[in-house]
Amino acid sequence: MNNSGEILKHILKHDITSPSPLTFSFLAPNIKGLDSANAILAQYPTAFETETQRFATSTATETPRGPHKPALEIAVFAAATESFSQKNLNCSIATSLERFGEVIRAAKDADLRVRAYISVVLGCPFEGYDVNPHRVAEIATDFLEMGADEIALGDTTGMGTAPRTKDLLNCLRKAGIRNEDIAMHFHDTYGQALVNTAVALEHGIRTFDSSVGGLGGCPYSPGASGNVATEDMVYFLESLGMDTGVDLDAVADIGAWITNEVGKPHGSSVGKAVLAARLRAQEVRTGDV
Amino acid sequence: MNNSGEILKHILKHDITSPSPLTFSFLAPNIKGLDSANAILAQYPTAFETETQRFATSTATETPRGPHKPALEIAVFAAATESFSQKNLNCSIATSLERFGEVIRAAKDADLRVRAYISVVLGCPFEGYDVNPHRVAEIATDFLEMGADEIALGDTTGMGTAPRTKDLLNCLRKAGIRNEDIAMHFHDTYGQALVNTAVALEHGIRTFDSSVGGLGGCPYSPGASGNVATEDMVYFLESLGMDTGVDLDAVADIGAWITNEVGKPHGSSVGKAVLAARLRAQEVRTGDV
Repeated sequence: MNNSGEILKHILKHDITSPSPLTFSFLAPNIKGLDSANAILAQYPTAFETETQRFATSTATETPRGPHKPALEIAVFAAATESFSQKNLNCSIATSLERFGEVIRAAKDADLRVRAYISVVLGCPFEGYDVNPHRVAEIATDFLEMGADEIALGDTTGMGTAPRTKDLLNCLRKAGIRNEDIAMHFHDTYGQALVNTAVALEHGIRTFDSSVGGLGGCPYSPGASGNVATEDMVYFLESLGMDTGVDLDAVADIGAWITNEVGKPHGSSVGKAVLAARLRAQEVRTGDV
Repeated sequence: MNNSGEILKHILKHDITSPSPLTFSFLAPNIKGLDSANAILAQYPTAFETETQRFATSTATETPRGPHKPALEIAVFAAATESFSQKNLNCSIATSLERFGEVIRAAKDADLRVRAYISVVLGCPFEGYDVNPHRVAEIATDFLEMGADEIALGDTTGMGTAPRTKDLLNCLRKAGIRNEDIAMHFHDTYGQALVNTAVALEHGIRTFDSSVGGLGGCPYSPGASGNVATEDMVYFLESLGMDTGVDLDAVADIGAWITNEVGKPHGSSVGKAVLAARLRAQEVRTGDV
């Protein structure tokens, strides 16, 4: 896989725009990472939207139609357990937070949005199910105080269950963290991603990560399957009467294409079912049954 | 696949017993089917438990330990839509209910439990999403009046969503049908089986069908994937603090074995994740990482 820098350069160099506002996430593990992002941005100063520009666009009463330039956000990844932090980042949680504080402050100075991930919040490959939700709340509070714009709670191992998802979110609420500042990042390894999404929705969370075709995984969490598939997430949210703004048929096509391109199994039940249903409808129309 | 008669004969002939009470479901589409079941039972009169014997065993204050003889239940399958009834049974819903009435009364005369399935209750391959829940309630009422012991509501196509599952169950409640008489039979084609199970649990339903490794499907509902996997269902119910009495590790082994034997893809996220986690634990123990 190309690194964040190469991908960012490609997007900005080719002046890629989109009909909807899109954000590219740039992984910056330390201040050097952020410096390299800033160096690339300096080469293409008009090819992207800053946080201030994006915010102005998104809150304008008359949102202008037409192509949007990409926005950039800086992503930092901490862990909810010491074992995972050591294996993943080679340092303690406390040390990682010091480093990320530097990154976050520099990113905000550069008018860049920051998304702070906390991994293994509902189960750790090394410490098991009992991840302390109070520790997660502390790390989230630290991140927000450093200036992070959003906290993404990662169920990296897919070990999250409905009751523990509820407990975690209640714990964060009691710690004074607002729902608007939280995104849920579920993996579907144990098939619980949509159940846990339902719990988070009831709690008031409205931001959910997903990946087309269920691609992804985590190199530091062996056996973890991909993120919950975008196709499944969109189908579920729409079934609840929510408007995702996503064209499910188009995403199903992309999911089939990309999983084939990268040679990974297609990880979306909905994607496969949508494509199978379309094929049957075509067969019926052409009499080829 | 062998038919119900051959399987029943095999079970009774070999005097197969089990540590927990198990029931074999015998598909009887018409009175001839029931006659053939009765003919087989007459050959092995002491190899199975009748409904009265099973009920006496299960309600005894001191449940005797030790092997149980299998019980038999008669299964009849109606459909919630006229199109599905015509394609599946070659007759209207009304005609099918007349036939099933004869089967059910004869089964009760023979002291056999009856399970009445209603297919496509939350979506029909020919009529789409809008299956009339009032029609489902009427058919369920007819079945119960004929003497059926349990109604299994089949989401044959997996098109069920959380809100429509809730609507259906509310409609059945208003029609006077008790939760104790209802079993849910979800397919996971669109990944909604556990979400819909959560809705049904909240409503008070406590009986859920599933199949090991997610095997199954429906020959009359092209493209429909299997029933929700037993592994996924058990993991989910246990995560909610319920006691299923099922050994998840053992079921995961069976799921891997049976899907391999019949040459079908393994349809259980939990089954695969449990086996992968066990393998990693073994590698760690043997130092083979």
